[in-house]
Amino acid sequence: MKSYTKYLKMHTRQKKEIVNITSEIEEAVTESKIKEGICLVNSMHITSSVFINDEESGLKQDFLKWLEEIAPENPSYLHHHTGEDNADAHLKRTIMGREVVVAITKGALDFGPWEQIFYGEFDGQRDKRVLIKIMGE
Amino acid sequence: MKSYTKYLKMHTRQKKEIVNITSEIEEAVTESKIKEGICLVNSMHITSSVFINDEESGLKQDFLKWLEEIAPENPSYLHHHTGEDNADAHLKRTIMGREVVVAITKGALDFGPWEQIFYGEFDGQRDKRVLIKIMGE
Amino acid sequence: MKSYTKYLKMHTRQKKEIVNITSEIEEAVTESKIKEGICLVNSMHITSSVFINDEESGLKQDFLKWLEEIAPENPSYLHHHTGEDNADAHLKRTIMGREVVVAITKGALDFGPWEQIFYGEFDGQRDKRVLIKIMGE
Repeated sequence: MKSYTKYLKMHTRQKKEIVNITSEIEEAVTESKIKEGICLVNSMHITSSVFINDEESGLKQDFLKWLEEIAPENPSYLHHHTGEDNADAHLKRTIMGREVVVAITKGALDFGPWEQIFYGEFDGQRDKRVLIKIMGE
Repeated sequence: MKSYTKYLKMHTRQKKEIVNITSEIEEAVTESKIKEGICLVNSMHITSSVFINDEESGLKQDFLKWLEEIAPENPSYLHHHTGEDNADAHLKRTIMGREVVVAITKGALDFGPWEQIFYGEFDGQRDKRVLIKIMGE
Repeated sequence: MKSYTKYLKMHTRQKKEIVNITSEIEEAVTESKIKEGICLVNSMHITSSVFINDEESGLKQDFLKWLEEIAPENPSYLHHHTGEDNADAHLKRTIMGREVVVAITKGALDFGPWEQIFYGEFDGQRDKRVLIKIMGE
């Protein structure tokens, strides 16, 4: 069994932003030389997400608008008694998910026709990291 | 380390439908001959889900009704400017999840008393696929 | 490849409660003697969750309040025709997630600065279990 670990640095310009990281993950799979296995990709922070969906700019805006409706910014969260102002980002990240696990088959991400991997930032404009862990043979 | 890959074909009669796929996953685990490891099961499409919950017909209807409330069909999504009409299916799939990772212990899915695996379709009536990737020894 | 399996017993005092289980997972990683690999942690029940977020008491209350808003207790669920009264717990668990997969690097959970693992109970006051499956070398 082989394993391969890589960290991506993320720093979004916007506070809330969805970034396509598929090519970075594909690069890590190639570097790992693993042909059959799995690839775990996760945010290392609790106000951002890694998820799989569609590369379409309108849909990415729909996601951000929808998240604002079901997990709105609001000064009344108890979490804000600590001096924080980002409780909504913790909720938004929960909806979108922390991680994805992707199969690797014949040396490549085993994806359907439209699957793309995204980093979802909900409290950005500062340094964050994404972890890639690949296991297999 | 051994690995085993299998693809299930899905084609629901309804546009929105929840299908129990537990026996298909159990069959793949048996075929893999893997006794200790993990089993990844994911939708290969971005408007459908794989998730674990309860085999109870009322609850499955509750899920579909609830998803319609928090991620409704609506003509005003920006995604629909592309000619698509299924933005709600992308959101519903996000709530239900893309994938599950299940432990394999002593050659079987290591499940609690009520765990069952489902395929959740939110834009169906056409061919789709589910990926099963099993790793272990 | 090595694998290690462990079950945690859970029994919350409250019906709805969020419990930090990070130290129990770290203990299992040490016991496994696995240095590079992955650790799957999942609820074995369909009305409770395992998820990663922040150890902050106000935020934990925010989570429970928010879940009550988007997946409320309500006598009108169809699931309740079976005699059950916990349909909301099935929905809440879906939002929070069934499982996490965490990388193990150099013998430890490969976590960002604030990541902690929680068990989220939404229909408690009875015996439940969490599964830990560790794979690697």
